[in-house]
Amino acid sequence: MTLLEQAKKGIITEDMRIVAKDENREVEWLKDEIAAGHIVIPKNIRRRRDFHPVGIGNKLRTKINANIGTSPDHFDTKEELEKLKVSVAYGSDSVMDLSTGGDLSKIRKAIIHQSPVMVGTVPIYQVAAELLEKDHDIIEMSADQLFDSIEKQCDEGVDYITVHCGITKKAVDAMKKQPRLLGVVSRGGSLLIKWMKIHKKENPLYEYYDRLLDIAYKYDVTLSLGDGLRPGCLADASDAGQFQELITLGELQQGAIKANVQSMIEGPGHIPLHQIEANVRLQKSLCHGAPFYVLGPITTDIAPGYDHITSAIGGTLAAYYGADFLCYVTPSEHLCLPTKDDVREGVIAAKIAAHSADIANGIPGSMDRDNRISKFRSELNWEGQYKTSLDPLLAKKRRKASEDFSEDVCTMCGKLCAIKTSKS
Amino acid sequence: MTLLEQAKKGIITEDMRIVAKDENREVEWLKDEIAAGHIVIPKNIRRRRDFHPVGIGNKLRTKINANIGTSPDHFDTKEELEKLKVSVAYGSDSVMDLSTGGDLSKIRKAIIHQSPVMVGTVPIYQVAAELLEKDHDIIEMSADQLFDSIEKQCDEGVDYITVHCGITKKAVDAMKKQPRLLGVVSRGGSLLIKWMKIHKKENPLYEYYDRLLDIAYKYDVTLSLGDGLRPGCLADASDAGQFQELITLGELQQGAIKANVQSMIEGPGHIPLHQIEANVRLQKSLCHGAPFYVLGPITTDIAPGYDHITSAIGGTLAAYYGADFLCYVTPSEHLCLPTKDDVREGVIAAKIAAHSADIANGIPGSMDRDNRISKFRSELNWEGQYKTSLDPLLAKKRRKASEDFSEDVCTMCGKLCAIKTSKS
Repeated sequence: MTLLEQAKKGIITEDMRIVAKDENREVEWLKDEIAAGHIVIPKNIRRRRDFHPVGIGNKLRTKINANIGTSPDHFDTKEELEKLKVSVAYGSDSVMDLSTGGDLSKIRKAIIHQSPVMVGTVPIYQVAAELLEKDHDIIEMSADQLFDSIEKQCDEGVDYITVHCGITKKAVDAMKKQPRLLGVVSRGGSLLIKWMKIHKKENPLYEYYDRLLDIAYKYDVTLSLGDGLRPGCLADASDAGQFQELITLGELQQGAIKANVQSMIEGPGHIPLHQIEANVRLQKSLCHGAPFYVLGPITTDIAPGYDHITSAIGGTLAAYYGADFLCYVTPSEHLCLPTKDDVREGVIAAKIAAHSADIANGIPGSMDRDNRISKFRSELNWEGQYKTSLDPLLAKKRRKASEDFSEDVCTMCGKLCAIKTSKS
Repeated sequence: MTLLEQAKKGIITEDMRIVAKDENREVEWLKDEIAAGHIVIPKNIRRRRDFHPVGIGNKLRTKINANIGTSPDHFDTKEELEKLKVSVAYGSDSVMDLSTGGDLSKIRKAIIHQSPVMVGTVPIYQVAAELLEKDHDIIEMSADQLFDSIEKQCDEGVDYITVHCGITKKAVDAMKKQPRLLGVVSRGGSLLIKWMKIHKKENPLYEYYDRLLDIAYKYDVTLSLGDGLRPGCLADASDAGQFQELITLGELQQGAIKANVQSMIEGPGHIPLHQIEANVRLQKSLCHGAPFYVLGPITTDIAPGYDHITSAIGGTLAAYYGADFLCYVTPSEHLCLPTKDDVREGVIAAKIAAHSADIANGIPGSMDRDNRISKFRSELNWEGQYKTSLDPLLAKKRRKASEDFSEDVCTMCGKLCAIKTSKS
């Protein structure tokens, strides 16, 4: 039985108990929220017993994900495993292996094996990458090939998969009727749309959705229903294509619940600040309270090199209004594959966003760490401040690098430190 | 006649015309908003004719400020002048010279002379720094000494000054009745409170406010009414001390208008996300629509080393709800005096916040640059993207550093670039 099936039958599992305890919630309530599809605990049946389950969804602490993985232009398994370590060390609750270059199965297996946190993938990437390697195009993909790749990845142990099931002919038509500045920016989305256009067929992930549900059920893999038509710039935000797809995702989410398969909904992307609340509220309404997994959103297009900041702004707002799961964006977004340092900066920016929103939403215990560091500040206790901060190494290094500082203060104010003055 | 005096008399000046043109507003409307105290154009009468005036306030583009200046532990005039250059190059509308170490007059004069943007100071810093240098304490300050220092700095040409006039006995009492975790974190505030406590006297900036208004009037210097009791941690946000001071600042703002002196109101600091709207709306209400100048606010205390991000989050929200002027926070906040690189990162983070809010508020033309870069993205025109971004050098360097990239795409997706797939 899948976790959702058990929840629907009123069975409380060990994983539910662990998550309820971690979140300071009643396990009965948690079970009901899982049964309603408002909370998911992504965990493949292949996971070892000691894998620590994490819940995503309604009224839980906001979770964050770090995208790692190779590209056709740059692949180095060791480097990706180091990014995995960095992601986890700085507090990511999940990683997605988005590899599209090198030996994809080998990289994925290594990441799943070494990751103490849930692992997600986008199975169509492997199909596309393998076709590309043989100089073939995505249009040569068969539906069987796609589902075989999905089953292979589930069998290898991924905990959740992004599947762009909501890209239908209807959604693509809606998008075309309200023309876009930047078109389609989802890799998976663009591949499927190209395939659909050439073959004049419906999206196989939509047409054979039951087949997908069967695979997901078999391994208890959570579906992350992808937003292939997400806006790639502010000008394209909240348009007909995006919401036509979201309406379909809401229907598919209901199908998943019936099939005892957990699911969450992916969201954009590039959204101006004043549209973020509407985007979250509409997702919650159209998708029956399903967990909302957003990429960013970034609130301006003009900051390549600083999109960990633009996404922290949008992500905080999104989480405040109800988004449950933030996919980080790194400083390298729109420019290149992230380095290890980019991964650290991306994870910390997403963590800041999630944490700021949790405080604003009154998530129990969320302000404890802030109060601890503030007490250390009032005591001018620097070691205490370092160890309570999100990046103790950096904080210590920064203060120490500033020459001539006095023992108890820092070079910002020196002897004119307000806290020192107040104590004197 | 000061600018405010002219506005009240219905006179339209050249500076009003320039600002109205820059902001795409009617000059008559601008004049009325200045007369009402809703908009200020900080500019000392000593400024040369070619100094470009900038407006701050209601319905204008959100402006940003960069704090530069030495500390008792670290002073190097050349370095500060480089920080000035960086601030202006990356788009700061203002700098504040907060120097407290080295030859303060020399540094300040150099900054005023070289700055193409408005310059602000906190005059009490010089009094405190000079006493400290002679191993004396702030309690030895006389009211005359403080006002002489203020006049000296106005005579040297500063465009606006932070004066903590709202720290009254009543405000300090209110603060004590609702005890704080971190107490007073404003340097100027802590100095004045110490002075008041030892001398058992009212704050001279409050008691002799008319004397301050006379000086400001003489040089047409804008008062930035400081928030000495601003919260220094989330736990202390929005408390009695903070709002007792703000009530007084609202009264003093009315006094400034009567005296034909422009003024704006400073705001916190550390505020949890869900209290930002209330803080802005209350400032606007208690202070009669005066321009609101906020430091941050930062939305969590646990991110030293990343407070340009925490403040970009809070600053965006604050500006969205009506804050007019954002003081940057750099990655070095809470740790050390900022370096030149910190200044760049701080300015860009504040710029992102201001710009994101302006788009959300529908400020005319604010999305033009976003639409330009999005068009370049759709064309895979990289040079166009660099030149339209907030940091062209960094964007170009980042993409170029990523080896093996193909001509038209980047190493993020390589040949699987969604934009490329959509075109094929």
